[in-house]
Amino acid sequence: MKKISGGVCAPKGFKAGGVACRIKASSKKRDLALIYSEKPCAAAGVFTLNKVKAASVLISQEHLAAGVLQAVIANSGNANACTGEAGLDAARKMAKLTADLFGIKATEVAVASTGVIGVPLPVEIVENNMKPLLASLSADEAGHAAALEAIMTTDIRKKEGAVEVEIDGKTVRIGGMIKGSGMIHPNMGTLLCFITSDAAITKDALDASLRCAIDRSLNRITVDGDTSTNDEVIIMANGEAGNSLIQKGGAGYETFSKALESLCVDLARATARDGEGASKLVTVTLSGANDEKTAETLAKAVASSSLVKAACFGADANWGRILCAMGYCGADFNPGDVDVSFFGGGEEVQVCRGGASLPFSEEIAKRVLKQEEIEIRIKAGKGPGSVTVWGCDLTYDYVKINGDYRS
Amino acid sequence: MKKISGGVCAPKGFKAGGVACRIKASSKKRDLALIYSEKPCAAAGVFTLNKVKAASVLISQEHLAAGVLQAVIANSGNANACTGEAGLDAARKMAKLTADLFGIKATEVAVASTGVIGVPLPVEIVENNMKPLLASLSADEAGHAAALEAIMTTDIRKKEGAVEVEIDGKTVRIGGMIKGSGMIHPNMGTLLCFITSDAAITKDALDASLRCAIDRSLNRITVDGDTSTNDEVIIMANGEAGNSLIQKGGAGYETFSKALESLCVDLARATARDGEGASKLVTVTLSGANDEKTAETLAKAVASSSLVKAACFGADANWGRILCAMGYCGADFNPGDVDVSFFGGGEEVQVCRGGASLPFSEEIAKRVLKQEEIEIRIKAGKGPGSVTVWGCDLTYDYVKINGDYRS
Repeated sequence: MKKISGGVCAPKGFKAGGVACRIKASSKKRDLALIYSEKPCAAAGVFTLNKVKAASVLISQEHLAAGVLQAVIANSGNANACTGEAGLDAARKMAKLTADLFGIKATEVAVASTGVIGVPLPVEIVENNMKPLLASLSADEAGHAAALEAIMTTDIRKKEGAVEVEIDGKTVRIGGMIKGSGMIHPNMGTLLCFITSDAAITKDALDASLRCAIDRSLNRITVDGDTSTNDEVIIMANGEAGNSLIQKGGAGYETFSKALESLCVDLARATARDGEGASKLVTVTLSGANDEKTAETLAKAVASSSLVKAACFGADANWGRILCAMGYCGADFNPGDVDVSFFGGGEEVQVCRGGASLPFSEEIAKRVLKQEEIEIRIKAGKGPGSVTVWGCDLTYDYVKINGDYRS
Repeated sequence: MKKISGGVCAPKGFKAGGVACRIKASSKKRDLALIYSEKPCAAAGVFTLNKVKAASVLISQEHLAAGVLQAVIANSGNANACTGEAGLDAARKMAKLTADLFGIKATEVAVASTGVIGVPLPVEIVENNMKPLLASLSADEAGHAAALEAIMTTDIRKKEGAVEVEIDGKTVRIGGMIKGSGMIHPNMGTLLCFITSDAAITKDALDASLRCAIDRSLNRITVDGDTSTNDEVIIMANGEAGNSLIQKGGAGYETFSKALESLCVDLARATARDGEGASKLVTVTLSGANDEKTAETLAKAVASSSLVKAACFGADANWGRILCAMGYCGADFNPGDVDVSFFGGGEEVQVCRGGASLPFSEEIAKRVLKQEEIEIRIKAGKGPGSVTVWGCDLTYDYVKINGDYRS
């Protein structure tokens, strides 16, 4: 497997683009994105488990029922959530407008939105900008970059990637982009994430492969414990690579799935690193739990704790908060079996053995915790369950960004 | 029922005191507290559900098994949690040292600790200060105040109260104090909270009454979603009021329970208001849920959301986050039935009806949300379930306090 450039335009037969149309009046950046495949694609999606679902999520779920897509249209600046019937009409209209550009069915278009909740989506602005949007499409990296910019909100970094693998003697490519910085908590496909591939693969295989990859990547990150109303991951595979059709569990399935998982892990790490206000990426690796599910619950509790996150911000080796978080999450473990160490910048410092304190150098701990990427390493016992989850620190800037998000 | 002064010293027959002994070397404030009843008390306790329990919690649970206490000794500056066998020995020693002062049994003493986790408790410092501690005891408000100061850590406000009711022709008093500011999340008795009463009451009645009061008060507050390792609520009733013995469900039980609940609600509100870094008290009242449990889950999700809390800090009427939080908490409701309004400073502004936006005055909303006490009023449907929970906003100071707590 090889990392390549080009994002969602890296696979053959895909175009992308984006334009600025002031869906949120105060913003001049690109805010309307389109990804299009020249051929119909096998498609799958993973959506927010929030009971309050954006209109775009509901419409995309409807359209994905048949498992065939050819385009995704997405906007930032407005979440089109809590917008009632008018919101559903607006999302349907976005699909129809896109379908009309290419002479395809509206049900072959997925719709995604992100931004402020509860403000009516000005769909006439979208309508007035469909021609420039079509004109912005390109099959090279510039098209990908324009679409990516158009889905970003408080994101600072561009989060994207593409990989290439050989399947059945053919080169298969997978590319992706993701937006998301706040309202991020692992309870399902997260944020807006669009993935393209030129693999020939059945929709069942694609769906299984996507769910497995997401469970081990985007479902293992947390920024603030808030699960968004708009989370939506869409994958489309158009078969242009010319490989023999991948079936679930058949030849090429594992190679494809591993490549997809690797891409999703890169996107997940990048998203945690770019968490709202974050100054550092905090990776929690936990081993020795009774099973993988237990490991995940324990590690997520640590990565989600406001107190642990604030201590990471302050480079304070306050490991008691780590045990405290493990203790209240409801998962089974023996506190007396827990070892904890911090790792960063190539150095490791152990601070807790057998659930109790260990003398350690505050100087080294401070140096380790001041790194931009730190790892909290936990041994929770002698069981086989292990996991890696990703989060970030809690900073003044998180409070600042979210104290006045709407204006 | 009448509010009175005096805190834990308001009921007859109780003394309290506190001294400064530098259990945490960098702090000069009082850090060792004692509450003592001249007569043996029926007693009950509620403790953290965290799997990682402080030594003081484990020892107090052991000592409470018989339901009789005569004293509580408590320290701040060290949580005596994650401290292994030595920690258990230290907690036992604190009980024994106290018992020796009065010639009572060690099992008639409860022990409580709060402060940094994972640092061995210097029990010799406690031992060297038992005489001054005894000398500090007094039955008036000064004794109460000294004990209260000695259990505070990052608390800014003094959180205390006392009430008086008539039962059976006799005046019965209940007084309390509480410490707690961070690591606060409603999953059980919370923080350190000591309540005294001169009621004559059986331990079963006292236990039932306490659990009910806590469920409707301290279990309905949240500061940061972190449930402490040291939460401990102790109530002692010595019978000095001379009323006929209150049995569970019998005469006087309801009057006593209502008074206790009222005191606990006052302590809970005060604790949320004094949340680490908090600039305002955020009360969430939710009605119309299918039942009380559902109402509580929904309201707590709103009060716990970092995004809702940050919006309260910024006085930003971002109500979409409220629906979002309700949506991800797993409780049953219909998003299309939800109304939301903000109330503060005597003004109310409705922002959402039937799950969708409502035009509202940003100016009034800003004025309402800038108050020091604000209320988020939610109607979740037409069901009978209603609840009130208390939280606070998320501020720069929360991050500051917790970025470097140990030093």
